[in-house]
Amino acid sequence: MITPYTKMSRRKLEEEYKKVKKEYEDYKGKGLKLDMSRGKPAPSQLDLSMPMMDVLNGTSDCDEELDCRNYGCPGGISKAKKLMADLMEVSPDNVIVFGNSSLNIMFDLISTAMNKGIMGSTPWCKLDKVKFLCPVPGYDRHFAVTEYFGIEMINIPMTPEGPDMDMVEKYVNNDPEVKGIWCVPKYSNPQGITYSKETVKRFAALEPAAEDFRIIWDNAYIVHHLYEDDQDVLYSLPDECAKKGKPDMFYMLASTSKITFPGSGVSALAASEANLKDVFGRLKWQTIGHDKMNQLRHVRFLKDSEGIRQHMSKHADLIRPKFELVNEILQKNLAGLDIGSWIKPKGGYFISFDSMDGCAANIINKAKEAGVVMTGAGSTYPYHKDPHDSNIRIAPTYPEIDDLREAAELFTVCVKLVSLEKIINS
Amino acid sequence: MITPYTKMSRRKLEEEYKKVKKEYEDYKGKGLKLDMSRGKPAPSQLDLSMPMMDVLNGTSDCDEELDCRNYGCPGGISKAKKLMADLMEVSPDNVIVFGNSSLNIMFDLISTAMNKGIMGSTPWCKLDKVKFLCPVPGYDRHFAVTEYFGIEMINIPMTPEGPDMDMVEKYVNNDPEVKGIWCVPKYSNPQGITYSKETVKRFAALEPAAEDFRIIWDNAYIVHHLYEDDQDVLYSLPDECAKKGKPDMFYMLASTSKITFPGSGVSALAASEANLKDVFGRLKWQTIGHDKMNQLRHVRFLKDSEGIRQHMSKHADLIRPKFELVNEILQKNLAGLDIGSWIKPKGGYFISFDSMDGCAANIINKAKEAGVVMTGAGSTYPYHKDPHDSNIRIAPTYPEIDDLREAAELFTVCVKLVSLEKIINS
Repeated sequence: MITPYTKMSRRKLEEEYKKVKKEYEDYKGKGLKLDMSRGKPAPSQLDLSMPMMDVLNGTSDCDEELDCRNYGCPGGISKAKKLMADLMEVSPDNVIVFGNSSLNIMFDLISTAMNKGIMGSTPWCKLDKVKFLCPVPGYDRHFAVTEYFGIEMINIPMTPEGPDMDMVEKYVNNDPEVKGIWCVPKYSNPQGITYSKETVKRFAALEPAAEDFRIIWDNAYIVHHLYEDDQDVLYSLPDECAKKGKPDMFYMLASTSKITFPGSGVSALAASEANLKDVFGRLKWQTIGHDKMNQLRHVRFLKDSEGIRQHMSKHADLIRPKFELVNEILQKNLAGLDIGSWIKPKGGYFISFDSMDGCAANIINKAKEAGVVMTGAGSTYPYHKDPHDSNIRIAPTYPEIDDLREAAELFTVCVKLVSLEKIINS
Repeated sequence: MITPYTKMSRRKLEEEYKKVKKEYEDYKGKGLKLDMSRGKPAPSQLDLSMPMMDVLNGTSDCDEELDCRNYGCPGGISKAKKLMADLMEVSPDNVIVFGNSSLNIMFDLISTAMNKGIMGSTPWCKLDKVKFLCPVPGYDRHFAVTEYFGIEMINIPMTPEGPDMDMVEKYVNNDPEVKGIWCVPKYSNPQGITYSKETVKRFAALEPAAEDFRIIWDNAYIVHHLYEDDQDVLYSLPDECAKKGKPDMFYMLASTSKITFPGSGVSALAASEANLKDVFGRLKWQTIGHDKMNQLRHVRFLKDSEGIRQHMSKHADLIRPKFELVNEILQKNLAGLDIGSWIKPKGGYFISFDSMDGCAANIINKAKEAGVVMTGAGSTYPYHKDPHDSNIRIAPTYPEIDDLREAAELFTVCVKLVSLEKIINS
């Protein structure tokens, strides 16, 4: 029977602290150098896509509706549109294929909204204030983009169903300064939560006070499941928005960054015809076109939805043991102690851990001192300010399994150590 | 002995018109479908780079300072910096390697100047007016970018030495609203003029009224010569700016778009450390990094300056006959008629033709009616307004040689036809 730390006697607590402190010092002595900070695929995952390097070679025919080696086709070749449309579960008519980075697409959407406005609305740079809703914890790079542009960010707490929709509705439907919301609707970063059907329906039913309000639906983990036979299903926002007569209210993003190669993948925007026309009005002056050879490479390698499914199941086989290992170690070392909670995700790239209030930064520091780098404290919140100083993003995919075991064990020791200090000193 | 049209008797003119009109109608009957409109490499040129598709294959080692398949290294891998630095004749410390499009780099530089300002200066969107100097004739896509952002464009006539520097100095040194100038300093688009040493020195000696004035030095044709043993030499703007204590006054661009594959090349920005730091301050939020696999592919294929030299001499061998053919046909059919002039370039992608005033649009229309597409009238000028309606950009690289012959012959017939109509009706 495990006694929660919060219920332990002072004497027991001090005994436990001594024991945990010793464990921590032992780890420190090991001179570890491990990294659980970024959502990077492991080399073994990248190896899965090495055959893609063979689909185009010195004798390949690169004609695919046009000579993909030459200029032209700024919206992407048809087969790449089809591939990305299949991935995003929309029509190819609603897709523009971009370069290697969906983050770059999102940055440019905001940049253009600032400079030129969206579909004829006032450019945001002409407004006194622009606000974005930020479901928290969330993706640090989303928040960095809005911070860069001086957009005020408002925290929206996440629930097991997605963002708190009462708050979202209150802000979006009443405040014309609220121009957007960042969403990772499937296997969210960092919690791995998939928005419920009800949440998606409430998104589509929003009645924004701002005509140029946009839901940024960053479908980064759309096929990134851990269990092929137990996947989350995300209800279709595009379909629901169409039904509600609000086809223009969202931009959907996806990429192959965590399907093939990060940095050498293909990204895409799915949106209404009117939105795409608006975006293309900028894109056509911005570039003569994206990398069609890489589009061709992806089309010939991944082929179609079935090709993507097969490929992603190989990824799942490689990363599932890592997620399960971390979960087991958290369970074994922390369950019942009442000093933290976490969600066991069914997909995505992270495990989100919540410590006792006021402990996250200390835990991350302790881990760092012992040679394990975690994502920086507060980085899952706008302005790097976690109001409870409690959320820690664990990224289990990159380390080798033995390193991961050591890092996760150490992490739990740090959680115990910092929690004990807090309880003893309070 | 050839009599200039302008000196012909009315009777002779009418005889000539009848003859030329018949020639034109004969061409029309042929049902041609040719294109001399865009500066695109021919398929045979693209074939030169097909071996690049073999340098990375399914068994390649992609480690080059880091695993190029994974995230990281947003400024570009060191070897790619070195390659692009060698191409641009600057230090690798002054280079950021970007994605596939130098146009995209330039668009984003202007976009950022609008949104955030340059190195702490007032964002251009906060100013009443921003102006750019545009050497004319020039590159249509440069002008399109400034037009898109609502920047006022001022024509600066080109001379055989480069832009009219008296005018450039007058504007730049006195008007703080003048924030930049578009330059293609080597084998300029469309005239093929390389700025003289004196011109480059005068650029570096500018004393801009605006602290955030930038020379946009688009070195698109830096190694794109037609005659390996008779190349233009461009004096170094970076070196000269450094000497004058104005290292921040320029952005230099280059890409491999017309070295390897348009759309699947590598582009780069060369600038001072302070400028690069400023640009990186945006870039780090805009993307996690550009395509390092493509950087690796280019490094392993082109290798170094000598590799680029050898590769470009193969391009020269393929396109030189096309430039010479067009020049011969212009010479044979138009010399001495006093109805047009042109420059025989030593590099670049175009031949610039100047008709009699008020004839260019008509000539282009006539060519189109007979099945030959030329670059649209006025497109070498800001706002598509050629004040003399005289400049026509001829792009000889893409068509096969026999098609090119036919297109060039027809073009000269159109020039004669439209000029005769003008002279007869005046």
